[in-house]
Amino acid sequence: MIYNPVSPILPREESDRQRSCQKGEESFTNSCSEARTSSTKSRQAERSTVFVRKPAAQKQPPGAVSPAKRQIKEVKETKTTINCVTFPLPGEGPEQQLLKPDEWSYCDYFWADKKDPQGATSLPGFEVLLQKQLKGKQMQKEMSEFVHERIKIEEEYAKNLSKLSLSPLAAQEEGTLGEAWTQLKKSLHDEAEVHLKFANKLHTEVEKPLLTFRGDNFKKDLKKYDHHIADLRKQLASRFASVEKARKALADRQKDLDLKTQQLEVKLSNKTEEDIKKARRKSTQAGDDLMRCVDLYNQTQSKWFEEMVTTNMELEKLEVERIEWIQQHLRQYTTLRHETDMFNQSTVEPVDQLLQNVDPSKDRELWVKENKTGDVRPVDMDI
Amino acid sequence: MIYNPVSPILPREESDRQRSCQKGEESFTNSCSEARTSSTKSRQAERSTVFVRKPAAQKQPPGAVSPAKRQIKEVKETKTTINCVTFPLPGEGPEQQLLKPDEWSYCDYFWADKKDPQGATSLPGFEVLLQKQLKGKQMQKEMSEFVHERIKIEEEYAKNLSKLSLSPLAAQEEGTLGEAWTQLKKSLHDEAEVHLKFANKLHTEVEKPLLTFRGDNFKKDLKKYDHHIADLRKQLASRFASVEKARKALADRQKDLDLKTQQLEVKLSNKTEEDIKKARRKSTQAGDDLMRCVDLYNQTQSKWFEEMVTTNMELEKLEVERIEWIQQHLRQYTTLRHETDMFNQSTVEPVDQLLQNVDPSKDRELWVKENKTGDVRPVDMDI
Repeated sequence: MIYNPVSPILPREESDRQRSCQKGEESFTNSCSEARTSSTKSRQAERSTVFVRKPAAQKQPPGAVSPAKRQIKEVKETKTTINCVTFPLPGEGPEQQLLKPDEWSYCDYFWADKKDPQGATSLPGFEVLLQKQLKGKQMQKEMSEFVHERIKIEEEYAKNLSKLSLSPLAAQEEGTLGEAWTQLKKSLHDEAEVHLKFANKLHTEVEKPLLTFRGDNFKKDLKKYDHHIADLRKQLASRFASVEKARKALADRQKDLDLKTQQLEVKLSNKTEEDIKKARRKSTQAGDDLMRCVDLYNQTQSKWFEEMVTTNMELEKLEVERIEWIQQHLRQYTTLRHETDMFNQSTVEPVDQLLQNVDPSKDRELWVKENKTGDVRPVDMDI
Repeated sequence: MIYNPVSPILPREESDRQRSCQKGEESFTNSCSEARTSSTKSRQAERSTVFVRKPAAQKQPPGAVSPAKRQIKEVKETKTTINCVTFPLPGEGPEQQLLKPDEWSYCDYFWADKKDPQGATSLPGFEVLLQKQLKGKQMQKEMSEFVHERIKIEEEYAKNLSKLSLSPLAAQEEGTLGEAWTQLKKSLHDEAEVHLKFANKLHTEVEKPLLTFRGDNFKKDLKKYDHHIADLRKQLASRFASVEKARKALADRQKDLDLKTQQLEVKLSNKTEEDIKKARRKSTQAGDDLMRCVDLYNQTQSKWFEEMVTTNMELEKLEVERIEWIQQHLRQYTTLRHETDMFNQSTVEPVDQLLQNVDPSKDRELWVKENKTGDVRPVDMDI
């Protein structure tokens, strides 16, 4: 029987898979790993949910109708293989639905390889994702550097302020004005403290977290992913080669059989009868051989597919974590900046207070009491 | 008739003077300058309000009773002259009331000279006031220097911040996170602007006013005051010298007259009669001479007194102005500091805003749209 995987009528297992694909990545990857460990039959089913299923009608004992003829016809019609990966031709075969239609998920958009600008070599889609990860790590590191620079600026500012606050300038100003002035100088030391506190908190609460988030293990992990997926691609390439080889062998056998059959038509001899039987056996054998190779190829491609989906979901998760981590710590930066401004405000208030109390007549009284020479006024001298 | 200047019953002019002395310095100095330009009689009155008035009973024609005897007796009793200035002895003569009892006014407390620590030389009270003025000018200058140093610190801080804000670090961060990061870097430039503005306003609104308040004219003016008062003191010294000289001359004449009188008692001769007449004339002349000298001395002391009062009031006014000027500009400093903290706050707000908008799935969408390699999934190869 034939059915379209996107049509509402689906066998149980099929519809389960579709649902689990719509659900969050968690259930999705689970379902993939199930699939990976499941029997060939259920693996076939798994694949069939994600690949375009080839019409069941074509499942026939190979050799009954020449597999070579059929296969060549089909490939021309509906499929193409690029860098050893087989895709449906545009408009051919039933339409594909995105695995996560509403999420712009990595697992939906990096199946093809990417031609580099020169168009010479081409880069696996997965490498594009890995480069994004490496770039993200680099950005995080550079942000931490930026904060480090800011810290150095704050520390120098604080150093200069507290140095100035110790200056003896106008230290001999007296009275209430002298008190206000002394407090004003002290307030520079308080400001310095505020900026030092800012610098220290920037270091522990922003710079360090940004720097240490995902140590060297991270790059190691990426390498592992990279090798794993690359190996599967190599395996796929070699499996593809054997398919090609087997296809050629089958074609040759086919030609030989046809030749022999024609000879039979012209002159009958039991020797030729024998040859034809032999040729048909070899052709059938070559057909079985091709089927085995194609099956191995499809198994590998399926394995690669599953790993791609799982790993891309993993990278997607990592990127979300990175962005949220950075957002959280840049928020901490602005919080500390706000605090700094508020604390700074408070360093000026005692100065305002004492400036309020400045009183020239009070200061005169204090100074006169300390410096007066005598309040007895001169009188006329007598004769 | 004798009366006590502090008793409620006072002659009209007297009470006027007392009142004007209680009133603000303006009316006071006016009254002093009136006094200076007024007739001797009214000047006498003026003085009498400020000096302890000597008992009117003692106003007698000199020579009637020997002036020398009387004067020596009196000085011993009630008055003393220190550095050529004549003061009432403690407890002698009617009590003096302060010219401005509630004000700790300069004009009440710097009549005596100040012995220096070694007690060798002594410094006029007026010099103590001048030194206070010079010190005040110095303090004002040092405060301006302090503000200048603060300005330099702010300028360097601003320079470093805006330099860092231009750094390319993490410039390749993308999407909503990239926008937030770009704004965070920009915010350092905004902060720098705030601190530059602070520095510029500190320069024009605090440093400069403090530096330029009372230019070099001020010190010139002080020198003028200084010389003027010092000259009067010199004049007073020379007048005092002539008094001493005249006093001695009178004493000699007195002795001579006494001698002649004794000779008359022992043996009578008209020649002696003549000598006595002559001696009495000379003694009377010496008495008149002494009176003239004492009057000149008292005139000078009175002039010095008036100048002291007026100038001390002037210095007092200058000091009040200085304190209020500094208070006003230190207030400006704290106002600018508050502004700076407020403006700084506002530099962080756009960053907060954009951090609010950071959205990992949005960023994934943007990145995927730009970097996707292909969303057509692989399919099984057919045979």
